[in-house]
Amino acid sequence: MKIGAFGEVMLRLTPPEYLMLEQTHTLRMAYTGTGVNLVGNLAHFGVESYLLTALPANRLGDAALANLKSLGINTSYVIQKEQHIGTYFAEMGYGIRPTEITYQNRKNSSFGLATVADYTIEDFIDTVDLVHICGISLSLNEHSAEVALAVAKTAHRKGKKVCFDFNFRPSLNQEPDKKRVMKERYQEILPYCTVIFGSVRDLSELLERPMDLSSRSAKIRSFQEFLSDYQIDWFAGTTRQSTSEKKQLSGYLMTSTEWIETEAYPLDSLDRIGAGDAFAAGILLGYSENWSLDRTVQFALGNSRLAHTIQGDVPLTTRKQVDQLLTHPTIDLNR
Amino acid sequence: MKIGAFGEVMLRLTPPEYLMLEQTHTLRMAYTGTGVNLVGNLAHFGVESYLLTALPANRLGDAALANLKSLGINTSYVIQKEQHIGTYFAEMGYGIRPTEITYQNRKNSSFGLATVADYTIEDFIDTVDLVHICGISLSLNEHSAEVALAVAKTAHRKGKKVCFDFNFRPSLNQEPDKKRVMKERYQEILPYCTVIFGSVRDLSELLERPMDLSSRSAKIRSFQEFLSDYQIDWFAGTTRQSTSEKKQLSGYLMTSTEWIETEAYPLDSLDRIGAGDAFAAGILLGYSENWSLDRTVQFALGNSRLAHTIQGDVPLTTRKQVDQLLTHPTIDLNR
Amino acid sequence: MKIGAFGEVMLRLTPPEYLMLEQTHTLRMAYTGTGVNLVGNLAHFGVESYLLTALPANRLGDAALANLKSLGINTSYVIQKEQHIGTYFAEMGYGIRPTEITYQNRKNSSFGLATVADYTIEDFIDTVDLVHICGISLSLNEHSAEVALAVAKTAHRKGKKVCFDFNFRPSLNQEPDKKRVMKERYQEILPYCTVIFGSVRDLSELLERPMDLSSRSAKIRSFQEFLSDYQIDWFAGTTRQSTSEKKQLSGYLMTSTEWIETEAYPLDSLDRIGAGDAFAAGILLGYSENWSLDRTVQFALGNSRLAHTIQGDVPLTTRKQVDQLLTHPTIDLNR
Amino acid sequence: MKIGAFGEVMLRLTPPEYLMLEQTHTLRMAYTGTGVNLVGNLAHFGVESYLLTALPANRLGDAALANLKSLGINTSYVIQKEQHIGTYFAEMGYGIRPTEITYQNRKNSSFGLATVADYTIEDFIDTVDLVHICGISLSLNEHSAEVALAVAKTAHRKGKKVCFDFNFRPSLNQEPDKKRVMKERYQEILPYCTVIFGSVRDLSELLERPMDLSSRSAKIRSFQEFLSDYQIDWFAGTTRQSTSEKKQLSGYLMTSTEWIETEAYPLDSLDRIGAGDAFAAGILLGYSENWSLDRTVQFALGNSRLAHTIQGDVPLTTRKQVDQLLTHPTIDLNR
Amino acid sequence: MKIGAFGEVMLRLTPPEYLMLEQTHTLRMAYTGTGVNLVGNLAHFGVESYLLTALPANRLGDAALANLKSLGINTSYVIQKEQHIGTYFAEMGYGIRPTEITYQNRKNSSFGLATVADYTIEDFIDTVDLVHICGISLSLNEHSAEVALAVAKTAHRKGKKVCFDFNFRPSLNQEPDKKRVMKERYQEILPYCTVIFGSVRDLSELLERPMDLSSRSAKIRSFQEFLSDYQIDWFAGTTRQSTSEKKQLSGYLMTSTEWIETEAYPLDSLDRIGAGDAFAAGILLGYSENWSLDRTVQFALGNSRLAHTIQGDVPLTTRKQVDQLLTHPTIDLNR
Amino acid sequence: MKIGAFGEVMLRLTPPEYLMLEQTHTLRMAYTGTGVNLVGNLAHFGVESYLLTALPANRLGDAALANLKSLGINTSYVIQKEQHIGTYFAEMGYGIRPTEITYQNRKNSSFGLATVADYTIEDFIDTVDLVHICGISLSLNEHSAEVALAVAKTAHRKGKKVCFDFNFRPSLNQEPDKKRVMKERYQEILPYCTVIFGSVRDLSELLERPMDLSSRSAKIRSFQEFLSDYQIDWFAGTTRQSTSEKKQLSGYLMTSTEWIETEAYPLDSLDRIGAGDAFAAGILLGYSENWSLDRTVQFALGNSRLAHTIQGDVPLTTRKQVDQLLTHPTIDLNR
Repeated sequence: MKIGAFGEVMLRLTPPEYLMLEQTHTLRMAYTGTGVNLVGNLAHFGVESYLLTALPANRLGDAALANLKSLGINTSYVIQKEQHIGTYFAEMGYGIRPTEITYQNRKNSSFGLATVADYTIEDFIDTVDLVHICGISLSLNEHSAEVALAVAKTAHRKGKKVCFDFNFRPSLNQEPDKKRVMKERYQEILPYCTVIFGSVRDLSELLERPMDLSSRSAKIRSFQEFLSDYQIDWFAGTTRQSTSEKKQLSGYLMTSTEWIETEAYPLDSLDRIGAGDAFAAGILLGYSENWSLDRTVQFALGNSRLAHTIQGDVPLTTRKQVDQLLTHPTIDLNR
Repeated sequence: MKIGAFGEVMLRLTPPEYLMLEQTHTLRMAYTGTGVNLVGNLAHFGVESYLLTALPANRLGDAALANLKSLGINTSYVIQKEQHIGTYFAEMGYGIRPTEITYQNRKNSSFGLATVADYTIEDFIDTVDLVHICGISLSLNEHSAEVALAVAKTAHRKGKKVCFDFNFRPSLNQEPDKKRVMKERYQEILPYCTVIFGSVRDLSELLERPMDLSSRSAKIRSFQEFLSDYQIDWFAGTTRQSTSEKKQLSGYLMTSTEWIETEAYPLDSLDRIGAGDAFAAGILLGYSENWSLDRTVQFALGNSRLAHTIQGDVPLTTRKQVDQLLTHPTIDLNR
Repeated sequence: MKIGAFGEVMLRLTPPEYLMLEQTHTLRMAYTGTGVNLVGNLAHFGVESYLLTALPANRLGDAALANLKSLGINTSYVIQKEQHIGTYFAEMGYGIRPTEITYQNRKNSSFGLATVADYTIEDFIDTVDLVHICGISLSLNEHSAEVALAVAKTAHRKGKKVCFDFNFRPSLNQEPDKKRVMKERYQEILPYCTVIFGSVRDLSELLERPMDLSSRSAKIRSFQEFLSDYQIDWFAGTTRQSTSEKKQLSGYLMTSTEWIETEAYPLDSLDRIGAGDAFAAGILLGYSENWSLDRTVQFALGNSRLAHTIQGDVPLTTRKQVDQLLTHPTIDLNR
Repeated sequence: MKIGAFGEVMLRLTPPEYLMLEQTHTLRMAYTGTGVNLVGNLAHFGVESYLLTALPANRLGDAALANLKSLGINTSYVIQKEQHIGTYFAEMGYGIRPTEITYQNRKNSSFGLATVADYTIEDFIDTVDLVHICGISLSLNEHSAEVALAVAKTAHRKGKKVCFDFNFRPSLNQEPDKKRVMKERYQEILPYCTVIFGSVRDLSELLERPMDLSSRSAKIRSFQEFLSDYQIDWFAGTTRQSTSEKKQLSGYLMTSTEWIETEAYPLDSLDRIGAGDAFAAGILLGYSENWSLDRTVQFALGNSRLAHTIQGDVPLTTRKQVDQLLTHPTIDLNR
Repeated sequence: MKIGAFGEVMLRLTPPEYLMLEQTHTLRMAYTGTGVNLVGNLAHFGVESYLLTALPANRLGDAALANLKSLGINTSYVIQKEQHIGTYFAEMGYGIRPTEITYQNRKNSSFGLATVADYTIEDFIDTVDLVHICGISLSLNEHSAEVALAVAKTAHRKGKKVCFDFNFRPSLNQEPDKKRVMKERYQEILPYCTVIFGSVRDLSELLERPMDLSSRSAKIRSFQEFLSDYQIDWFAGTTRQSTSEKKQLSGYLMTSTEWIETEAYPLDSLDRIGAGDAFAAGILLGYSENWSLDRTVQFALGNSRLAHTIQGDVPLTTRKQVDQLLTHPTIDLNR
Repeated sequence: MKIGAFGEVMLRLTPPEYLMLEQTHTLRMAYTGTGVNLVGNLAHFGVESYLLTALPANRLGDAALANLKSLGINTSYVIQKEQHIGTYFAEMGYGIRPTEITYQNRKNSSFGLATVADYTIEDFIDTVDLVHICGISLSLNEHSAEVALAVAKTAHRKGKKVCFDFNFRPSLNQEPDKKRVMKERYQEILPYCTVIFGSVRDLSELLERPMDLSSRSAKIRSFQEFLSDYQIDWFAGTTRQSTSEKKQLSGYLMTSTEWIETEAYPLDSLDRIGAGDAFAAGILLGYSENWSLDRTVQFALGNSRLAHTIQGDVPLTTRKQVDQLLTHPTIDLNR
């Protein structure tokens, strides 16, 4: 199964060795974004992977393109126009000190300014079997929201699978009335989707659906009603539990009739950004290869746990690494 | 004499060791801009120096502010609002390979979005004796152009000296009709100015003045008419001569009655960005301390030549270094 | 309240990535010292902060000065004379391997050689409302001890608050009879002080006061006698508890009538040097803003815990970061 | 025209900042080789470019593959087998100090051990219109020589163009009788080739052809006899002239009837390795797009001169950069 | 007691900051190997230490030699011939992500190609009192196995002590029938040895000895039979226990009559490679200085635990550091 | 011939990539000094080389010692006492910008505080055939001057050759009357010396000898009288000629009857510190191996020219490199 993603490419700039911006004259640079992370990871799993996005038509855009190619991503549908790339600075946290993200220039980026007419959406959809859409596209601005919807509708029309990640970021949606607009956009795209990544909060707060959380079975019923309403195949996500001593991660995956939840594993985190996309990549791998729900969610969670131990957003894990973690979790040296 | 500057602060990101963006995962970061370069250099000459500018109200803006302070710049009049800083990537050239600049996010930066109401222009002008305005502010967008004009007018009204650098960048002014607008803006600001940095081209092409270049004396006459028209004290600039073998630099400085031009010196260039601002800093130092024209232009050119040998835009030269170059030009080791 | 500090500026040289001196050809350089850490941190809290110190009158001293400015410290009272700066190499420990500090050139540094006559102590004290004095100045040599006493006496005479940090280092006081001299110097300075940072050991071993540690209430009584004797407002410090598995940190703060001690928090330490100064900065912030004892010590301890997670000695924490740790201790990503 | 190359991928390890191996604990790593350089450069010119080679079937081979992709090279025909990659250390020279290359593990590399049966030569040749073969393959060992001949013969049989670079390295051919074997291999491959890169020495010493160098016209006649004998379309190469003061570079290009030689340009060299491949890439671009001989050799030489100014072997030049050098040779800053 | 080791020197290349090969253009370089680690560590303990090995006769070999010298190793018996050095890339793991080792060019290295005739074994043995032989030499190829046996026999003949480390690596011995050959080689060398590093598995699987593990006393008896059979003085090793939460390390040391096992300590691991050699160095120090079994194994285990916290393979610990860990295990800062 | 040197070891700290102290948070560290440079270079020529010096008895001294060993220097006579090492910061110049040296802590270093009683001078002199003494030892302080004289006298008494380098630094001798003291010290040491490095100025200004420079032959006569007076075998030095365009270097070598001067070669300088020591190393190599004057001075000058192209003070040149420069001066790549 060929998998494509529609999403923004961002430039990530990270001070070395847990330094803060004020302390350093040096930065590590990488190209990232939900779509990049997802199809970059899938390419490392051996899946033929495509990205639909817009990069600047300048030397920085060229460098970004070279980096996407190095991840194994097929970039035939990447366009170059305008001059800017969304950027973020990540001051890496340590222990109780949180990682601090500072965004730059997101709304006026090449991706933010690209319209449906700029892309070759039909050809892209013809090429892939499944397309992943990141919910941030719905929030970023009207251009990106329109493209996201067009991608979903085109895929649905052509009989391709659509996967959607809620990825709702309150910080990108603070204008008055924005939340209502967002709810409508999410409701508009959901009917075209068959695999969804999300959480209770996405359903209860964003979509304002009544969620009965009084018992485990009630919660499952509430979810499954949502799945039935939109005829969704799979709904998946992760749960983080934090105490002052320890952080833990578990994953869940459900259909309209089944519900699987993994045990919670301790997290030893080098760089937590992108770990959600690693979980999604694992789920899509299982979905595209018809794995059982259980094997899929175990693989996805293992992949996400490994992604926490990798510098940068893009999960560069291989099947071999994830399988070794699941079968021999205490090996710490391969030679 | 206390000297202030109004101008944009930019983030400069430079790959190490002459690498290109495509070749590196590491960048050197610095904060720069005509105003920064000028008052940063003057602070190294022991002059009390101020900057009027706008930085982002986030951690990146805080880091920029810390860097301005480390240059010795008084930042009391720097404001923090909005979220973005203009950025450029500098791929350093070597030999026949030119340095490549890629700009990001300039028009929507904190500086680009700041208006006259955001700044405390009156207080700033009360504090300084001379204010330098970079011509790029006139090009960037309407907000920055309005602030530049307000600064010039306020200074003039309060009896402070105004220094203006044409710094006309055709690449920032390619919209139709933009050139006409720019000519008007330049004509509007000039009557308030007493020290000008510019070139023949600025007068002939931008201001569309008739310049008689048929002989040296005719050229001088053309310039001096311009100085008389606008009651300008000093007009200065540098001239670069390039052959495939060698680059050379000379400087000129004129009043409405005098004209001094230095000999041309060979250039051994490590980083040519910011060297024009070093020349300006040297001229302003001589102007503020009532040096002779000759001493001033020799110091300014020596300063500019040294600035070509310093990594980054900001000329970190001291009086001692410039004086040693002028008096003992072949010393290559101080111990 | 404007706060000043008198203390040594040191050059810290640190091998990267936990390497040892023998393993590296590269060092990270930073400028530090109790006074720098304290007022640098207070400047990040928005307090107008000053440093009274002596730096070399050469390019290294200039670079040190630029770095102090970048921290937001007002350097008007920093003098430059002589040629040397105290230096230390910090080989960062990891796990059970301790951090190793190797000092260079402390006694003959510009700071060590500066005398009362070199500084403008009267002006400095006129400018600030509270002055912090590091006890190391009493140990370093006679010059620095004299200056420390002069600062304390001048402040007291002018009605300014004096804060004193015992910071007694046995390793700097190993000459015969030095301990007796030190006891006298500490006894001489204490009557001028109103805020003290110290420990049981400072009182029992250095000052040779009888401390009854047989019960908690007895210990409190012993401390409060000391506070009464010297009319001290606040006495504060931290306690580290280490087992082979875990390190923990708690803080205490007392007046002559009250005693508050925080719970012990686990420490996840990236760089423990300077964390004591972070605690002191937090205490002084609360003192200068009339916070309750409880709020003060909680903030100070949170600040110290964060400082353990920051590379280098200088705590670059902001109020926002400390407050977030206290209110939302499990957040590990801000975006 | 689609262009492919058959050649070895090598790992290049370079100490930073002109340091020698003995002086550094750090290395810059890159993947290179005549084929990589050539098709990597052509990809930057917008040509669809392929590489036929063998990489290790391990994580190092995976990393090499990712780097080839980032250059824009189509890697569909790259195989992974065995465990080793040929490696060289490049201690960068400066001024009169030569660059020192130390090779490691070339003969037992994946490329050295790969045989005709391992590759899909037929498919590769079907895909491309022109194939470039590096003469080093004939020297390395019997396996690589056989593959090189098979590639040439298959291309010839299928009516595709064959380009061959003599690249004769005496140091790789020092076994007794090796020179005779090499002459036979070169004679065997030449009949299949239509574009050749070489020098007088290749013809006179390696092929032992009589070359009359007594006059310019005699030399041209000798060359053109060679071209006629083997029905070669184009023969090209560069000439370096060195004095103690200056190095210069010129290029030549001939058909059986024409002879063009450029003027000699001064060389300002940052990294001279790979500059010959840049010349070849320029020639092939002109050949594939039917440029005039003159335009072709000027472009190729400009490209080679630029390649001398780029860190690393792979010429990352674009058409825009080469064209700017040819039309505006003194521009040293693009903004 | 002078101690020598026979073993391979390898070049280790490590990406910085836990990056993977795919993510970096920079590597840290170091020279390592069981023999290097052992005698390098012993030199740090003040023992006169020698290495018998073969390095390339080129600039890389020269650099390796310089690095061995810097460790304090006497290199009089190191020869230089052939061109290659065995190399490995170490992608450092983090948390649940294992460290990944990729070997290059081991069998054709200078060490792999050196024969008995190349070395001056007699002189080497005359110089030292005890010689350590790494079992990998028996696996690498026939040349290195022959040299290892010659070293053991010569030492035995001259009345010197021989220490042998099983170090059996299944991955180096996967050819059919290789295991039988290996068993014979191990059986051939053991009669000459008096100190052995190994494990239950070495005895039961490689030597195919019956080991009764049904009870602690039975296990001890099985081991002590082995010691009696080969007249071995000391047999020692470490045991790692891993759960998903925690790793722990203990050590054991036995004679034919005694058995000592330490408690298990938690491991906080920065770089676990080389930690086994640190244990061996500690044992040999105790053996050569006639320490008690208990003191020896405690020191050796402390040394090994510290080695886990040091970047790189070579344990650069001093006696002072190990002693401090044993006596004051919670000190985390020495100043 | 075994060669030893008596001289200070200094720590050199250099910002990367031509940055200034103010611009960097990173430094490159190396250990250097005239003696280190000389015997380090001789060790690279294959000469058995020793250093007599004092290093700190701490971890920094240990690291320095490891670095001396890595250069191939025999460190048996290096002592460790006291705590400090002389340090200098080298801000590398570029083009017309001079390199700036800032010294730290020289007079109170371990070397400065070591006395005749601390060293084993007799054994050192017994071991070597020729000893080199750096004139800076005479200037540094009384301790080092006494040791230098003791070394010279002991060597003379035992019939060993003494080589002395004037190396007079006015900046280290600015106290009143210091020049007279220095003249006496130089006059005291010269009778024991047979090879001298110096210049006209050393003889005329420091020793206040009448030097007739009116003609070449007069100058030679003046020098040769000096050689006769002190029974000096060889006197050598280099001459630098600088214009604004170009720097050039030539060398001279004379006996009491012969005078040889090389032509002047252009200098392409990466790091000029230590190049004088490279010239001295070349002269001593020729002296110790009885080369002709001409071969010696050509080799020495070639060595010095190469040393200008090497980062750092220590000339790491080999005989092979110098010989290649002399015989094939235009080769710029060895592979």
